[in-house]
Amino acid sequence: MMRMTKGSNSAEDEHTKHHEQQQQQQQKQQQRFVKALYAYEEERPGCLNFAPGQLFEVLNVAEGWLYCRADGLTGWIPAAFVQDTQETEWQDDEYYDQYARVGIHHEMLSDTARNAAYSDGIQLAADAVIKGGVVMDIGCGSGLLSLLSARTGARKVIAVEASDFYEAAEKVIAANGYSECIDVLHSRVEDVEDVEQVDCIVSEWMGTMLIFEFMVDSVLAARDRFLRPDGLMLPSYSRLLLTPVNAAHMFDDHVSFWKDKCGFDMSPLIAADKESKFSRPIHDWKMNPEQQLAEPQSIFEADMHTVTAEELEEIHTSVSFTMTRDDTCHGFGSWFNVEFWQSRHNRDAPVVLSTSPTAPYTHWKHTLLMLDEPLDVCSGDTMAVDVALLRNPLHRRHLRIHITAHLHRHADNSSHKVSKMFRLWR
Amino acid sequence: MMRMTKGSNSAEDEHTKHHEQQQQQQQKQQQRFVKALYAYEEERPGCLNFAPGQLFEVLNVAEGWLYCRADGLTGWIPAAFVQDTQETEWQDDEYYDQYARVGIHHEMLSDTARNAAYSDGIQLAADAVIKGGVVMDIGCGSGLLSLLSARTGARKVIAVEASDFYEAAEKVIAANGYSECIDVLHSRVEDVEDVEQVDCIVSEWMGTMLIFEFMVDSVLAARDRFLRPDGLMLPSYSRLLLTPVNAAHMFDDHVSFWKDKCGFDMSPLIAADKESKFSRPIHDWKMNPEQQLAEPQSIFEADMHTVTAEELEEIHTSVSFTMTRDDTCHGFGSWFNVEFWQSRHNRDAPVVLSTSPTAPYTHWKHTLLMLDEPLDVCSGDTMAVDVALLRNPLHRRHLRIHITAHLHRHADNSSHKVSKMFRLWR
Repeated sequence: MMRMTKGSNSAEDEHTKHHEQQQQQQQKQQQRFVKALYAYEEERPGCLNFAPGQLFEVLNVAEGWLYCRADGLTGWIPAAFVQDTQETEWQDDEYYDQYARVGIHHEMLSDTARNAAYSDGIQLAADAVIKGGVVMDIGCGSGLLSLLSARTGARKVIAVEASDFYEAAEKVIAANGYSECIDVLHSRVEDVEDVEQVDCIVSEWMGTMLIFEFMVDSVLAARDRFLRPDGLMLPSYSRLLLTPVNAAHMFDDHVSFWKDKCGFDMSPLIAADKESKFSRPIHDWKMNPEQQLAEPQSIFEADMHTVTAEELEEIHTSVSFTMTRDDTCHGFGSWFNVEFWQSRHNRDAPVVLSTSPTAPYTHWKHTLLMLDEPLDVCSGDTMAVDVALLRNPLHRRHLRIHITAHLHRHADNSSHKVSKMFRLWR
Repeated sequence: MMRMTKGSNSAEDEHTKHHEQQQQQQQKQQQRFVKALYAYEEERPGCLNFAPGQLFEVLNVAEGWLYCRADGLTGWIPAAFVQDTQETEWQDDEYYDQYARVGIHHEMLSDTARNAAYSDGIQLAADAVIKGGVVMDIGCGSGLLSLLSARTGARKVIAVEASDFYEAAEKVIAANGYSECIDVLHSRVEDVEDVEQVDCIVSEWMGTMLIFEFMVDSVLAARDRFLRPDGLMLPSYSRLLLTPVNAAHMFDDHVSFWKDKCGFDMSPLIAADKESKFSRPIHDWKMNPEQQLAEPQSIFEADMHTVTAEELEEIHTSVSFTMTRDDTCHGFGSWFNVEFWQSRHNRDAPVVLSTSPTAPYTHWKHTLLMLDEPLDVCSGDTMAVDVALLRNPLHRRHLRIHITAHLHRHADNSSHKVSKMFRLWR
């Protein structure tokens, strides 16, 4: 939808660089967002091209022009082509409303692998951190992690829940006799004041492709304000993985599908179905380990004690895959795992919650990033993949995933490049 | 939410009767709808009690009072407690927008039992009606039924599609070489003018519990305007069935589920989960035939050539079940079937599209109406069930299902009555 026009004027480049330095400072102040009313397609150095509806974060203003960021690119746009948007930075109402409903908690509590990992992780940290300590549970939901912490021997648990589901947590905690030990705070954790330093922060913040929903932002902000030096984060470490996959079933169901229905050719509908089904990550995919075409690679790793929210704003990485068999590559599978440590400095024998296709089922399932056209691959072919995870500057719980794959086919020494952007979800 | 206060004043009753006679006449004019701002709980003869948010169709007006209908009840309500609502009678935009997306057509075309029944049904009527005749396809979607009619030998097909998906139908029809034979009209069928009389109307209008979405309204209106005398409706006959069921898996998953999670009692969440999951029909249930506790009974049948939209406004029926084994009844399963006839007066060897649990899978699946508490039943016990399907006077594509079951237990000659109302979906 939008492409960067490469600057060719060095004065413009300096200008740009200057403004990039100002970015960080600007962000601390009130952010301003604009939405494109019209397309802008002129090839001006230092400017961004865009389609109607494109959202921008405004970084600076000059006569008739705005210096903006969108999808990880920065550049000038004509002010007359956009209007200020009233949409708020954080879509908190939309977000917290989901968690006020019992169905989402039913889904999470149905995930026995998830529950067991948190239970085991809290148990693993019992002696070094939890027993006699203060635990903060961020987004406590039905209260399970708070209850596990209390039962393991925490002196005090601060259970923070921004949605109206906090009342349900209070009832569950009372029914189990832990009202004395666990304080439920109905608040965004960002708004919590006057609580003591805590020994441990426990939270189940992971979403599709690990960071979707960006609940991790709240967890990191709380860490910086409330966790004592050398306190423990649970989970302690996180890792996002990627691998090329054969997804013939998905391709067949949304492409081949249309070629014959009761003897009629419905292939004019293929383009619409691809746009509908393949333009965003397929987040509820059940991947079979046999669909992997190469050894999975980590595309992001974070020590939860030290990673910053700023580092999650734009994640860029490059990985390389070597195909393990002759097959067809339809796209990429992705999943995450997290580790629970004994203490901040003891990672021995961690508890691991893996959402890999080789691990037991979890409610996160797997994520499939479908290419529009399949690629034939042979055993030994290499694929260099550049991945960018770009947080949406306006819809702050959303991100875009840019993938550029360079396939090198050994048989004929040919190279093939394919790029695609996926919105998750905006 | 609302209950009828039985009239005890005969003058009031006469007054009421008079206004009921006026109802039919009023409906022909502009309808007026109001929504309750406050609860009204006074026990006044001839009046309706209600909760805030209740929607009413206004049938008549008197000084400070409105004579209204809601959920199949009529009575007076205080005008000061309600306000006029701006919501439109037909939620057409919401409805047609769904059908503008390719995903819903993918789902329908994936249903091979559905496709085969329409294909076979059109074939069955080939000699008597279709060959050389004019067919109208209402809500043509991707165009499958129009194409089947054209291939079977229709002289002309009028394919009506209100959503923007009509463009997709045009492309598919062109790709298959039928643009000459099939005219695609981008219109609600109610707005179609100047078309010739047709020999057959084919449409796939069935929804959850047969009538949900009330697309049948459009089909019946078209029948009355465009179908020649003795023309054929496809499908020709429809039938909605009900049976008491054991749904222990559903009860366990939303009630027993909460009793132990990692050793904690989460039963304070049972009430919210029941309200969330059991207050509306569960429309995507996959019923196993072994879950039936008695012979299914038909609760509604319609000859599509003669049924009127008015008859669908309120459907009342009473049926009786005899339990075939000792078991637990958690609620009622429901599904429908439709028949395709050779011609209007030849029902021999009809093609049947059944969505019964004993028939092959369809995308309609089965519908489960869960009671809040299970009932123990014994073989030979009888259950008399009163069913009312009440079309929503405001949200015209929606309905409410009232069920009153009288269980007679032979062992101790005891009787047990249970009533419940389900919104589908408003």
